[in-house]
Amino acid sequence: MRKYNIAVVGATGMVGSKFLEVLTEKQLPVENYYLFASAKSAGKVINFMGKDHTVIELTDENINALKGKVDIALFSAGGKTSERFAPVFASIGTVVIDNSAQWRMDPKVPLVVPEVNPQDITWNNGIIANPNCSTIQAMVLLKPLYDAFGLKRVIYSTYQAVSGAGVAGYNDLLEGLKAFVNGEKYETKKFPYQIANNCLPHIDVFMDNGYTKEEMKMVNETKKILGDDKIKVTATCVRVPVLNSHSESINVEFNKPVTKEAILKVLENAPGLKIVDDVANNVYPMPINSTGSDITLVGRIRIDDTVDSGANFWVCADNIRKGAASNAVQIAEYMINNNMIK
Amino acid sequence: MRKYNIAVVGATGMVGSKFLEVLTEKQLPVENYYLFASAKSAGKVINFMGKDHTVIELTDENINALKGKVDIALFSAGGKTSERFAPVFASIGTVVIDNSAQWRMDPKVPLVVPEVNPQDITWNNGIIANPNCSTIQAMVLLKPLYDAFGLKRVIYSTYQAVSGAGVAGYNDLLEGLKAFVNGEKYETKKFPYQIANNCLPHIDVFMDNGYTKEEMKMVNETKKILGDDKIKVTATCVRVPVLNSHSESINVEFNKPVTKEAILKVLENAPGLKIVDDVANNVYPMPINSTGSDITLVGRIRIDDTVDSGANFWVCADNIRKGAASNAVQIAEYMINNNMIK
Repeated sequence: MRKYNIAVVGATGMVGSKFLEVLTEKQLPVENYYLFASAKSAGKVINFMGKDHTVIELTDENINALKGKVDIALFSAGGKTSERFAPVFASIGTVVIDNSAQWRMDPKVPLVVPEVNPQDITWNNGIIANPNCSTIQAMVLLKPLYDAFGLKRVIYSTYQAVSGAGVAGYNDLLEGLKAFVNGEKYETKKFPYQIANNCLPHIDVFMDNGYTKEEMKMVNETKKILGDDKIKVTATCVRVPVLNSHSESINVEFNKPVTKEAILKVLENAPGLKIVDDVANNVYPMPINSTGSDITLVGRIRIDDTVDSGANFWVCADNIRKGAASNAVQIAEYMINNNMIK
Repeated sequence: MRKYNIAVVGATGMVGSKFLEVLTEKQLPVENYYLFASAKSAGKVINFMGKDHTVIELTDENINALKGKVDIALFSAGGKTSERFAPVFASIGTVVIDNSAQWRMDPKVPLVVPEVNPQDITWNNGIIANPNCSTIQAMVLLKPLYDAFGLKRVIYSTYQAVSGAGVAGYNDLLEGLKAFVNGEKYETKKFPYQIANNCLPHIDVFMDNGYTKEEMKMVNETKKILGDDKIKVTATCVRVPVLNSHSESINVEFNKPVTKEAILKVLENAPGLKIVDDVANNVYPMPINSTGSDITLVGRIRIDDTVDSGANFWVCADNIRKGAASNAVQIAEYMINNNMIK
């Protein structure tokens, strides 16, 4: 059986260390792992899969030294690093699966959720983009609904966890909460205002149209992943004081008539999705329940009779796993299982 | 100058004690205050406005003993207590301003936000209902927009604070956070699941249609307050780990064309509303900013081009003040200032 070589770039960050965790769980047929990070973390030794790995500094020289020896590189090192180094990996024959926003809307780069559009992997040119965390979980829900009923309009309101803002964001909530319950002050390092006991309607930077980049990611990536520019999408993205797992309130208008029964029937067999919807027994998705899982939870499914055919949904998913690391590893797994690596 | 007599019913609860705080600030022309509560709190002495008040037990006998002596009764003692005792106060000539959901949809009871529909006060039959907290702040925003552009459809997604669930809900978060940061367990008393580090898409009880009662309050109260059954309204209500002030993501479809400039012009002069919308300088509403104020903050105002005429809004307001106590006291103040008390 063929064995593969995988590089992890940004191995010491929030998503990077989750890459290692998910790779350990998956036990893909891998010969060698190469862990890359910036100069700051280079030389550090990480014990991974029972072996000590010295973190390699991300430089042209170090990448080129591995020419022909790395099949897949899982990137989570920010947009700038990806812009600079993903093409270098691609040039040595590596398929880059990149978690940053850098390549997502590039028409030459497929944007993939394995349960939704694995067919797009085939036309990659050495770089495959992992969608935004908040988009991924919405796609797992919306793809089967799109296929069954068509999507006319989607309105997202998100309840996003601080882990999406990396280690610094995570610590801003954790340290902020400690200070809060002790009546002390805490100066946030990542967020512009306190996130403990607060909601910030501000994720990523503001654009000229007044929307945040995060909101526009949800709008544009939804259309690209579903391959349909005619779907109308709008979004309001909000950071809430939750450590991990994003939640979303999604209002959907369909092209064809729906009933709750028809929706449930479609979603019952949807890959990567679990229906958690028994309100008589207080059963509904919550971020504490999706954390640690690669499954997107959907519940609070209600027909919306304010349009001819519509429904409201509530979805929760682990933004660091399914929203980032696991989705990328699933792409790698899909490529390995389907002999898509040259 | 005429002086009035005011009773506060449920004086020892979360909203009840806020009634006392707001009344202290307002300094209405009041002769006597009567503080009522259940047997459990009766006899307790509360120092209020520099005077000791012994809490009176809420019984028919004690109410009837004050026949003709109480002009206004501010109620916040739950639906059942209001159902039982509001009519008793009304029968002795008192105008009841009730904060529970008990009378809100009764066609003989006006449902009033003073900035929005004060004219409805005139047709009261002894009971005036205070709307649901999450509805009130939406109305302060939507009324001027309704007048200017007409409302076709409104989609609410809420981010509601635990203070809306009373003292027990408030403590569930506060104690839950303390336990959380110390790595300890905490059993919630009010909420079915932990609210610290979590979101609960569950406020009030579930109805047969799958919506919660809270969601249906927002739907039905919006139409009643604006006096227009043709407006289409749907809602998803979510409890977030914030102690105080509700936030709402509101998507609106208008009947007439809008621009951001036209919306801003309309909202600039809206009573009880403040525009907090300068994203270039990270200025937007947050629950930590609306807490302690009676003003509803609106920001993140964005044209939504997925419909012919639409926009997205983000509003924050203090749910215990404007969403409950202050709105009720403002109704009392309006009646006093306009000589509407017999």
